[in-house]
Amino acid sequence: MKTAASSVTTRILGLDPGLRITGFGLVDQLGNQLRYVASGTIRTQDGELPGRLRTLLDGVREVIQTYSPDQVAVEKVFVNVNPQSTLLLGQARGAVICGAVSCDLPVAEYTALQVKQSVVGYGKANKEQVQHMVQRLLSLPALPGPDAADALACAICHAHGSAGLGALAGTTRRRAGRLLAPRSGG
Amino acid sequence: MKTAASSVTTRILGLDPGLRITGFGLVDQLGNQLRYVASGTIRTQDGELPGRLRTLLDGVREVIQTYSPDQVAVEKVFVNVNPQSTLLLGQARGAVICGAVSCDLPVAEYTALQVKQSVVGYGKANKEQVQHMVQRLLSLPALPGPDAADALACAICHAHGSAGLGALAGTTRRRAGRLLAPRSGG
Repeated sequence: MKTAASSVTTRILGLDPGLRITGFGLVDQLGNQLRYVASGTIRTQDGELPGRLRTLLDGVREVIQTYSPDQVAVEKVFVNVNPQSTLLLGQARGAVICGAVSCDLPVAEYTALQVKQSVVGYGKANKEQVQHMVQRLLSLPALPGPDAADALACAICHAHGSAGLGALAGTTRRRAGRLLAPRSGG
Repeated sequence: MKTAASSVTTRILGLDPGLRITGFGLVDQLGNQLRYVASGTIRTQDGELPGRLRTLLDGVREVIQTYSPDQVAVEKVFVNVNPQSTLLLGQARGAVICGAVSCDLPVAEYTALQVKQSVVGYGKANKEQVQHMVQRLLSLPALPGPDAADALACAICHAHGSAGLGALAGTTRRRAGRLLAPRSGG
């Protein structure tokens, strides 16, 4: 059963900001179907902060120019115990968001809790659980790297919100608060 | 007595980043002489973070396009007691730095301590002391606003570093660690 909304494909860019490694992942959403497009990481080398922020800014802009997403979803970063680390992470996140807004794209923000609940069905899911669910939801041939997986998870979370809650209910099942992949033939 | 270096005017843009108010100030440096060019603030209104970061990014780029500075000096922000505030401030600072690096300008960073020591001669100087010294060092007809003053102070700090320590020694004097403005006719 198709709705009018399902006839329009929306390409979503998910971003998981970090000063050293920023993950990116793109998915196409057609109704409640998701299709993997691309994923990877933008890495910065040790050095002066302005140069590293420029690498992040230019990197995000290059990803956008290459894949032409319609919408961007960025993971809200953790507040670190160390205030200096929090400040560095904040600056990296600022650069990543600037990469998106400077390309005139709308940016939505999601907490790690929202992303994990949306993808794994459990807000305290660990990295491996996120990687596995991203692999299954997008039918990937191999496990995505942790940073790319977090970025793809953020894009999936945004797609779930756009398609209405429970958009993937038909392909997954819940047990004890965890969203499980479909059983083969189930 | 002029040196070879003093024949080249360098325009320095100082930036004092904040999510709500970012101060900017431009000074021309000719040898150890400083001339005021312009100053002001970039303000963002309450709302979603990506839109506010875009206002900062576009605002800094507009200032650069208007005044064509050669170098940029950005104040390092305080780590706030509140981690969420630190994160917000970090993101604002990331956007401000991105505005500069996206215009291919070199960015230097200075702590508030360095700026105050350079301009007031006293690292724990308060806002008013900074405003007064900026007014005197740049021969301004009126007291600059606190955010513009901090930005101008950052530009002055950068100029002092570029011209060598004590570049302004001929025009100012120190007493008990505080740099004082020249006495009239002194």
